[in-house]
Amino acid sequence: MKPHQPVHRVAIVGTGTIGASWATHYLARGFDVTATDPAPTAEAALRSYVEAAWDAAAAIGLAPEASPDRLSFTAELGQAVADADFVQENAPERPGLKVRLFADIDDATPPDAIIASSSSGITMSVIQAECRRPERTVIGHPFNPPHVIPLVEVVGGTRTAPETLRDAMSFYAAIGKKPIHLKKELPGHVANRIQAALYREVMYLVQEGVLDVADSDDAVSWGPGLRWGVMGPHLLWHLGGGAGGIQHFMDTLMPRMVESWQELGTPEFTPELKEKIVTGVLEEADGHSVDELATRRDAMLSALLAVRAQHDPSGPLSAAAGHPANEGP
Amino acid sequence: MKPHQPVHRVAIVGTGTIGASWATHYLARGFDVTATDPAPTAEAALRSYVEAAWDAAAAIGLAPEASPDRLSFTAELGQAVADADFVQENAPERPGLKVRLFADIDDATPPDAIIASSSSGITMSVIQAECRRPERTVIGHPFNPPHVIPLVEVVGGTRTAPETLRDAMSFYAAIGKKPIHLKKELPGHVANRIQAALYREVMYLVQEGVLDVADSDDAVSWGPGLRWGVMGPHLLWHLGGGAGGIQHFMDTLMPRMVESWQELGTPEFTPELKEKIVTGVLEEADGHSVDELATRRDAMLSALLAVRAQHDPSGPLSAAAGHPANEGP
Repeated sequence: MKPHQPVHRVAIVGTGTIGASWATHYLARGFDVTATDPAPTAEAALRSYVEAAWDAAAAIGLAPEASPDRLSFTAELGQAVADADFVQENAPERPGLKVRLFADIDDATPPDAIIASSSSGITMSVIQAECRRPERTVIGHPFNPPHVIPLVEVVGGTRTAPETLRDAMSFYAAIGKKPIHLKKELPGHVANRIQAALYREVMYLVQEGVLDVADSDDAVSWGPGLRWGVMGPHLLWHLGGGAGGIQHFMDTLMPRMVESWQELGTPEFTPELKEKIVTGVLEEADGHSVDELATRRDAMLSALLAVRAQHDPSGPLSAAAGHPANEGP
Repeated sequence: MKPHQPVHRVAIVGTGTIGASWATHYLARGFDVTATDPAPTAEAALRSYVEAAWDAAAAIGLAPEASPDRLSFTAELGQAVADADFVQENAPERPGLKVRLFADIDDATPPDAIIASSSSGITMSVIQAECRRPERTVIGHPFNPPHVIPLVEVVGGTRTAPETLRDAMSFYAAIGKKPIHLKKELPGHVANRIQAALYREVMYLVQEGVLDVADSDDAVSWGPGLRWGVMGPHLLWHLGGGAGGIQHFMDTLMPRMVESWQELGTPEFTPELKEKIVTGVLEEADGHSVDELATRRDAMLSALLAVRAQHDPSGPLSAAAGHPANEGP
């Protein structure tokens, strides 16, 4: 493969929640976006999603000439990807479907285009199995909602070319995402595993009756979660080590944490526990709808991203802001 | 015990990092604070800490007449607590020392005062063993740094009175903290366990070579951590469930997460892994000192708290702002 050409046209394959949020992000970064989905109501749902999400995307920042009007839709897959420079696929998580779909996308997309999958549960080694040009296929797994959260997990399959990984990383970084390169394929990639690890202990504490549901949400979001909103765990240990930093932390405090792993629990996912959580969350929501709460979440997230951009020069939005070339195609 | 009287004077016993940060918080909330510590350099270190931390405390908000000048220091424990309405103890985590110290504080403190311990590793049932009035002793475990992070874990020992739990919860809530009541004593309380659960998986991914250190920090702080900075995990699942909310999430997505727990790992804390993390963190720090990074962390945290206060009416700072009576003594 030659070095990747500039991306002008993005194709979105599959326009459920993830695909619609990706479409919003690419439109906000100033791309022409063509979307496709076989569902009869897909186009209306997609346009409605983009309209509702545009304010949150705008709060994070729009590229010059970004517009929801630059979205087109077709029910024909081949037509959607025919002149794409970058394809972002978001179909249902069924292995047979994904393998067939990737073979079709591969056949219909210009040979130099990158084809990325948002799949979390199926590895690219599986998905690319029937592609004629598997070297340009890659996982680009976003974190929900992709038009707000910067993280993208990039990982190749056994037949993905190193240049594809490099170009996908560069492309995502240039459009305000924070791509990380996973050196191995793992089920769930990494962010979902990290979430699952945290939630296992939270659920255990609820099942043990130590905390009710709202208190366990507060335990995260007004404590360690607040800190993870601004820095990662290793760097926080560095600060927790005081003047001696990470070396002191690892020497004196880490051994105790390693011991504590033995005391962590695994809940049994019983109907009673499920009911307790459902009831607790509905009480916590306090009559506010899912839409209202999601709007509140995204308003807080975009404000937090602005705080991060102001203070962290290595952040994705600071980087994009410093390079006009990164503002879009 | 009778209903608790208003708190005017706070005593801080033990002025290491946690005690000094608590002192800063109580001063910022407008209290008279008397601190004590046996170390010869303690007073100078404490005053220096408060001075350095005052800007961060002020960014979050000062009570009327709050001033670092309202801090006094004495090396005599009995003198420090003699007229305290509330004692916050932060001595080293050695059981014998804490038991002896609590008996001494109990003897010297007015009978109606609450005596709270910041201990994370020793339960109140142990600490209160030799107190004559154990009913007014309680754990009030903060999250570092306490003058910034709202979470306080409140849990009693077997001889703690329910009124003490109630009054400690009310007091912390009134001064801009987010107290949560733990219904059972557990080693590490809950927030440290939640951190340990997350870090176990992060460290495992580094040991397995899936991620380097900086990437694993990014995986948290630009992904799930960013979301936990604004909401707790249960409520985020509610939004992740779309229109069906938490019920839909628990019915359709949770079973897969429960299965994934089997795939999570536990690293072996080897010298090689320790070295890899120390080296990786120092690279990530990129020449910035621990102090510089801590200042950056606290600036971002205080800005994030302002964002939360603006959007979340149930948050600790929103609540305090709405009630002038909560602004201090």
